[in-house]
Amino acid sequence: MERHFDENLQALKFHLMKMSAIAEVMISDAIKAVVERNEAMIHPVYQREDQVNHMQIEIDETCLTLIALHQPAAGDLRFILGAAKANTELERLADEAVNIVQRSEHLLKEPPLKPFEIIPEMAVIARGMVRDSLHAFVNRNADLAREVLLRDDRLDDLKDAISQELTDYMTQDSAAVARALDLLLISRYLERIGDHATNIAEIAIFVVEGRDVRHHANP
Amino acid sequence: MERHFDENLQALKFHLMKMSAIAEVMISDAIKAVVERNEAMIHPVYQREDQVNHMQIEIDETCLTLIALHQPAAGDLRFILGAAKANTELERLADEAVNIVQRSEHLLKEPPLKPFEIIPEMAVIARGMVRDSLHAFVNRNADLAREVLLRDDRLDDLKDAISQELTDYMTQDSAAVARALDLLLISRYLERIGDHATNIAEIAIFVVEGRDVRHHANP
Repeated sequence: MERHFDENLQALKFHLMKMSAIAEVMISDAIKAVVERNEAMIHPVYQREDQVNHMQIEIDETCLTLIALHQPAAGDLRFILGAAKANTELERLADEAVNIVQRSEHLLKEPPLKPFEIIPEMAVIARGMVRDSLHAFVNRNADLAREVLLRDDRLDDLKDAISQELTDYMTQDSAAVARALDLLLISRYLERIGDHATNIAEIAIFVVEGRDVRHHANP
Repeated sequence: MERHFDENLQALKFHLMKMSAIAEVMISDAIKAVVERNEAMIHPVYQREDQVNHMQIEIDETCLTLIALHQPAAGDLRFILGAAKANTELERLADEAVNIVQRSEHLLKEPPLKPFEIIPEMAVIARGMVRDSLHAFVNRNADLAREVLLRDDRLDDLKDAISQELTDYMTQDSAAVARALDLLLISRYLERIGDHATNIAEIAIFVVEGRDVRHHANP
């Protein structure tokens, strides 16, 4: 029984890491669709969304089964409940990648607006936060989780900078309004991805230290 | 022991309903700040946010304790895991009310834009969805939960309508860009509140029927 439990726990971690890897590719592809104006990147994002949705349901079932069959001790129970929550975050952030390609479908029908370097920079940060927050959770690494929390500030700053830039753009050139709005929403979706990664990092700290760092200024 | 478990389960439901009631007031107050240009509504939203944050941490702890101490049977375990997830949704939708008052602080510094009746209509729908999704969850009422899912379509339609209207506005009058953008983001925050309520309704159906209705066209 004990060995069976450990194997199932390993499988749970493996599936979460696989789901995270798929979500990371979705983010990269969605941003390629926007920045490189590459239409071929759009369809794979929708395909991967289906995969992620299936995985989410399976992971939730695995968490339920693990608790019901094995009645895990406090530390493992905390980890499994954390896994169920991290699972939700991964699915939601994959949804944000879908939101980005939906906007890119609008954008690709119009002539390009000036290149906005902030978007790819935000994407690199957001993707890294996803990868590292999930690693922190699976490997119970609170230091890495804290490091992810810090990166979210940079993402917020970039979001504010591009919001200002795009608002000015819309004010100066009415022909740019619709496209600038699409880009502004894309920057918000990237910010949301960072928020979901932040949530995963907070779950990781909670699992490792039993300390709830949500809603505190100094984690 | 058994009676103790039932009492704790009742207390869990009571706390979720209380948290939902606070979140509903936050939504109403936030929209009053925007629509009635009523600055006095802003501060209470921030105060209630603190309350909601505390409740979230306590409810999560209650869920952990209930599982660890009582090793509940499958149906109750499903309910408690659902409660932990609904808890997250409630805290997130309360955050959206905070996002709305932050935007209203911008807006109140500027002269009013023309009245947008869609915003209060969206707020009424979103608030009703929060109340009823949580009722559906606590009272294990799958019919009510399904009814909530249907209302989300109306909210999405209203969001599309106001997005179009505000985009036209920004294109026609560059002086209106910043304010129209604030209103557009507020409509998106209301849409997000509807999304969180939808998530709670899906959790309710999952708990009652053991059927996962996420990611399906026909729930």
